[in-house]
Amino acid sequence: MKHPAVSRVNGLDDFRYIDLVERKIEHVKQRASLRDIAAETGVSIATVSRVLNDHVSVAPRTRDLVLQAVERRRQETPARLRTVYVRCPYVLTDYFGLIVSSIAETLKLHGLRLLLDAGESGQQSDALKVLPREAGVDAAILILPPEEGDELVALSESGFPFVVVDPRTPPPPDIAAVSAAHSSGARAVADHLIGLGHRDIAVIAGPEEWLAGDARLAGHRAALAKAGVLLTPDRLRHVEATTAHGKRAAAELLDLEPRPTAIVCFNDKVAVGTLQAARERGLRVPEDLSVAGFDDIDLAEATDPGLTTVRQPLQEMGRIAVTQLMRVLDGHQPEALHIELATTLVVRGSTAAV
Amino acid sequence: MKHPAVSRVNGLDDFRYIDLVERKIEHVKQRASLRDIAAETGVSIATVSRVLNDHVSVAPRTRDLVLQAVERRRQETPARLRTVYVRCPYVLTDYFGLIVSSIAETLKLHGLRLLLDAGESGQQSDALKVLPREAGVDAAILILPPEEGDELVALSESGFPFVVVDPRTPPPPDIAAVSAAHSSGARAVADHLIGLGHRDIAVIAGPEEWLAGDARLAGHRAALAKAGVLLTPDRLRHVEATTAHGKRAAAELLDLEPRPTAIVCFNDKVAVGTLQAARERGLRVPEDLSVAGFDDIDLAEATDPGLTTVRQPLQEMGRIAVTQLMRVLDGHQPEALHIELATTLVVRGSTAAV
Repeated sequence: MKHPAVSRVNGLDDFRYIDLVERKIEHVKQRASLRDIAAETGVSIATVSRVLNDHVSVAPRTRDLVLQAVERRRQETPARLRTVYVRCPYVLTDYFGLIVSSIAETLKLHGLRLLLDAGESGQQSDALKVLPREAGVDAAILILPPEEGDELVALSESGFPFVVVDPRTPPPPDIAAVSAAHSSGARAVADHLIGLGHRDIAVIAGPEEWLAGDARLAGHRAALAKAGVLLTPDRLRHVEATTAHGKRAAAELLDLEPRPTAIVCFNDKVAVGTLQAARERGLRVPEDLSVAGFDDIDLAEATDPGLTTVRQPLQEMGRIAVTQLMRVLDGHQPEALHIELATTLVVRGSTAAV
Repeated sequence: MKHPAVSRVNGLDDFRYIDLVERKIEHVKQRASLRDIAAETGVSIATVSRVLNDHVSVAPRTRDLVLQAVERRRQETPARLRTVYVRCPYVLTDYFGLIVSSIAETLKLHGLRLLLDAGESGQQSDALKVLPREAGVDAAILILPPEEGDELVALSESGFPFVVVDPRTPPPPDIAAVSAAHSSGARAVADHLIGLGHRDIAVIAGPEEWLAGDARLAGHRAALAKAGVLLTPDRLRHVEATTAHGKRAAAELLDLEPRPTAIVCFNDKVAVGTLQAARERGLRVPEDLSVAGFDDIDLAEATDPGLTTVRQPLQEMGRIAVTQLMRVLDGHQPEALHIELATTLVVRGSTAAV
């Protein structure tokens, strides 16, 4: 293979040389696009350059013409310009799949590329440390990042633009984050059960030291306390958020004397396990036991009876995360750093009067 | 901004010039890595080059030393080298989410980056036309591509490496494709119903002119025919693969006289709709009606009774797609161009003797 005649800069090592050449390429590409805009608008390259440098000596009409052409080009070609690293350290089942799909669609609308890191292996990732130096990565969206807050702060202080979706721990100030309003959603579903006359309500909560689990449990507790009921330790279980773990915890709760009249679950998967445990004991839902979930994923409509649950605005979460990121990328301070999106109580057949 | 002294090659336009400079960078990078390997192994750069060019005049021990160093470097740094565009023109719910997660994990193991294009907007994508010229994209995995076969052939003839997962239409020869063995899976579930004594079996099939729908329906028909039963038009519905469409089609079938004793569905979502239609009519499953699905996604365990279904090896599909792609990328012909992965019949409570 013959190599082109590009002269070597003396005294530079290879990598320094590459850096210089890459900047030269960037320069040549910019010049090429100036030329295209000049050709498209019928003005000189020098005039296009003057407009882009905010020079005063350009007629307003010419200025508008050039800026419109620039904007058209920006809308047509940005896909090559900016790439967003999206990490979801879980398998993309319903919940995470919906968030990632929404992020993907919204990034595409903005002409950004999505570099995906998905699956459990993301839990042991040290991606954050290398992210700011990663070639061709301009920003990141981190879903449920396993890192501690100080690592996120370090990334932010390095000047790398990113947004956290559904933070695992309370997000540090100055870090843009989007999540569902877990606490008020949980209050709404507990209020619903109390409104149906339930007082002996057991809770299968999520893992401890996880913001969503913590905030939902706080919401459940608050609603119960308002009705004058204290959640006692024997009525509370913390589980991993799976159907199997939910079933096991529900079995324990249903064997208590007296038996709780309602079980409110960390999420829909746990609630499906609770329905299974009830069925094995010959208990009818909702006649003998009310069951409620959280998330409103596909499962919630497949059960018999359908699950009363709290709908998380998963698609909106993805959209807002991208909108936040666009503002950070454009050098703005996001208006509200921590956005909590409202949830909706969805009442189906799994809850009824006590 | 001052630009480095890189001399201009006369008579080339800007883009041709960029191309030359980029090749020069590639050359410099390669030389830099030859030098590193030489330093690491203590042999000369010329010797490293001889080993890589398969020269005979190198001592076997030196050769092994150099090749091991090269392999270590390959494993340490390939993430910056190759990027795979993965397109899934559907929302990443259970089914597609599992495939994409598995592709993501496997690409990461191979040190490749994943550029994601997901969501319904991918249906109107003209990505295939620009893919070979897309900057920084080395290969593609196309899940259920909406394009016709000739567009895939054109992409293949352009020399761009790609693999199709779950092709929508029969994949053209010479195009690497991975899918589940739809037909034999469908035969297995229909055989299961026939084995339970069912003869009046209705079928809710998927959309027509979709390979999966076509192959599954052929499997159902074949099993029925073997038992001496012809699937009549009044026992057959084609639907979009959603719960709502499944419910509507099942309602029609359940109102037939005589009522079919079993309904075999295109997938689990359609089967969930069928369970709902049966419940609304006061029919007990499996006593009055047997119902079977396909896919074995989370839903299949959430219903009451659990769904008899056909498990698709979704994770394996992702893994094999990447393995196929690695072979294409390395310039090999994949051993079997069209790989069909075996499915498994999963018997749960929704089917019983007639």
